[in-house]
Amino acid sequence: MTPAAPLLLTPGPLTTANRTRRAMLVDWGSWDEGFNQLTASVCARLLAILHGAASHHCVPLQGSGTFAVEAAIGTLVPRNGKVLVLINGAYGKRLANICEVLGRDFSTFETAEDEPTTAADVERLLQADEGITHVALIHCETSTGILNPLPEIAQVVKHHGKRLIIDAMSSFGALPIDARQVPFDALIAASGKCLEGVPGMGFVFAEKQALAAAQGNCHSLAMDLFDQYTYMARTGQWRFTPPTHVVAALHEALLQYQEQGGLPARHQRYADNCQALLEGMAGLGLRSFLPAAIQAPIIVTFHAPKDPRYQFRDFYERVKAKGFILYPGKLTQVETFRVGCIGHVDATGMRAAVKAIAHVLQEMDVLDI
Amino acid sequence: MTPAAPLLLTPGPLTTANRTRRAMLVDWGSWDEGFNQLTASVCARLLAILHGAASHHCVPLQGSGTFAVEAAIGTLVPRNGKVLVLINGAYGKRLANICEVLGRDFSTFETAEDEPTTAADVERLLQADEGITHVALIHCETSTGILNPLPEIAQVVKHHGKRLIIDAMSSFGALPIDARQVPFDALIAASGKCLEGVPGMGFVFAEKQALAAAQGNCHSLAMDLFDQYTYMARTGQWRFTPPTHVVAALHEALLQYQEQGGLPARHQRYADNCQALLEGMAGLGLRSFLPAAIQAPIIVTFHAPKDPRYQFRDFYERVKAKGFILYPGKLTQVETFRVGCIGHVDATGMRAAVKAIAHVLQEMDVLDI
Ligand SMILES: Cc1ncc(COP(=O)(O)O)c(C=O)c1O
Ligand SMILES: Cc1ncc(COP(=O)(O)O)c(C=O)c1O
Repeated sequence: MTPAAPLLLTPGPLTTANRTRRAMLVDWGSWDEGFNQLTASVCARLLAILHGAASHHCVPLQGSGTFAVEAAIGTLVPRNGKVLVLINGAYGKRLANICEVLGRDFSTFETAEDEPTTAADVERLLQADEGITHVALIHCETSTGILNPLPEIAQVVKHHGKRLIIDAMSSFGALPIDARQVPFDALIAASGKCLEGVPGMGFVFAEKQALAAAQGNCHSLAMDLFDQYTYMARTGQWRFTPPTHVVAALHEALLQYQEQGGLPARHQRYADNCQALLEGMAGLGLRSFLPAAIQAPIIVTFHAPKDPRYQFRDFYERVKAKGFILYPGKLTQVETFRVGCIGHVDATGMRAAVKAIAHVLQEMDVLDI
Repeated sequence: MTPAAPLLLTPGPLTTANRTRRAMLVDWGSWDEGFNQLTASVCARLLAILHGAASHHCVPLQGSGTFAVEAAIGTLVPRNGKVLVLINGAYGKRLANICEVLGRDFSTFETAEDEPTTAADVERLLQADEGITHVALIHCETSTGILNPLPEIAQVVKHHGKRLIIDAMSSFGALPIDARQVPFDALIAASGKCLEGVPGMGFVFAEKQALAAAQGNCHSLAMDLFDQYTYMARTGQWRFTPPTHVVAALHEALLQYQEQGGLPARHQRYADNCQALLEGMAGLGLRSFLPAAIQAPIIVTFHAPKDPRYQFRDFYERVKAKGFILYPGKLTQVETFRVGCIGHVDATGMRAAVKAIAHVLQEMDVLDI
């Protein structure tokens, strides 16, 4: 496809840099020392992003992000543990579903999709149930784009002597998380999100002692992060065939991440993207679902126009024809669509997307926004 | 890297065609209709290779091949089932290990690493234990390259009314398997082997009725092939983020597979590669571990030279410097190394590899072969 391929304004897979994709033009041997170095470099760079080298191991895992979330629960929650799952969207629900399938005891606390969980909620819940051993939180709940207050919740969890598991799939690399200040047993993310790699692998930052104590917990051979880590530490290699091209692309993406100024620069670019998007869409009368204070600069949910001439499918295809791929809404009660702020795109690209959306609404005769 | 990048004579990841890798230069949206069509085309092409469209579903799965093997066991063996695992190498042992971790009852039958399991063995074993519900077989046991007699074993299993699960990771696409003649509940392979795609996804051919009856069996959310299939059948999409670039590469590899003449042509090329390798190495005095009759044209295990000046690490690095990446042996009792016959390489390439090996042995002063 040409460089005129549509821009993906989606929460991953997203648009990557040419240079990142070109790193996949090489076939690496998975047993080769050069590839081992690539893996080690990826893990070191990932740990550096959250200042976690002293406290955590980075354990990469084949598969999508959900595989890494399941692996973290399966490996780090003992079979007799109990997980409190904090829910305000689809990914929180999925995490609870994982606990259920794995047979880990769990309870849930659900707030509305536009309402962050608070530290006070967690304080109350932990006081009410001493059986809870782990709390699981979605940092940025991608189904709306809502940001949950991670540092405050982490302090409460620590204060109670409990363990925290963080799904930071769509925030890691863009929103600051400092492992020296935010205590957690596991933080999970993936290659194809804010690091702007291609999809195909996840990774779990596992607290060293928690991981060392996790032998035999896991319900799965392939997802056992204790085994995965131990094997890699011993041999430098992945335990099973790695997605070599995905790893090479992630490495190249991480080089660019650093060259561009690391997390502060990535955060700033996405914040600018989000700002340009919100302003432009407001200019068209399109309302965002979340108030600004709890909107993460990752993905924005917009109310669908009320006009009966609006149909998402038609809207999507027309905007795509103009060079931008949007994302459907994930709310059950309200009709919405989503626009991602992440990937290899800047505010100019976001403004061009808004312009395309404006034209399409006109073409479709959508007047009642 | 330049076209002078080393040729991977390994059992996957292996050398792929330029055209296959170049298919990864596009970012696909995972929600996009164009990508759904790519997935559907991949599945249809995979099913056509084993003439399985009438009898089986193709269920792709994120992750390495082992993830797909575990998913097949977890989904298709009921929790009260019992698996007879036929072992003559490391991948058979791994399959038994999966049964153990998943808590599926199992028994094993192990032959020497140069001794195929026979249909008579399986007949006897099934007569001796009526509790067995499933038989699991490694078609080509990649740890040596030995071929197990799949069609004969499949008939015995069917005759006893039992179900067969086949790990055909390193044979599918190169060695003929016809689902109209060989009855099985699951056959497992992956993108980065004889189809010459890049690694990052596996797939399971699941017998339609067996899959339909498998709801709720699985120990895992991410690896549940019933859910994976049901979601894909309903939406055309993968249940969790697909490795989009890996899928696109596999699609491109499958187009070339067909253009080049499909399975017979792939089989012939690999057989020619294997022949050229065996003849060339015999000319150097290097002995293959397996007799020709049970040697699959996939990967060949060679006895290491006896000469104390031979060290695999040194040998490997020197051969690599001449442009060929070999593979270590996987036998515990005998010192060996392996050379793959699969990937984007022909007999001329294999002869060049033999020449490089000859030079290296000379350089190393390895005389006592
Ligand atoms: C917060 C969050 N958790 C989990 C996932 C699941 O990741 P995947 O689709 O790669 O399995 C996503 C995907 O977007 C996500 O945003
Ligand atoms: C016969 C067989 N089974 C299973 C596997 C495991 O596949 P992976 O390394 O992709 O997990 C392999 C890998 O080479 C194999 O050859």
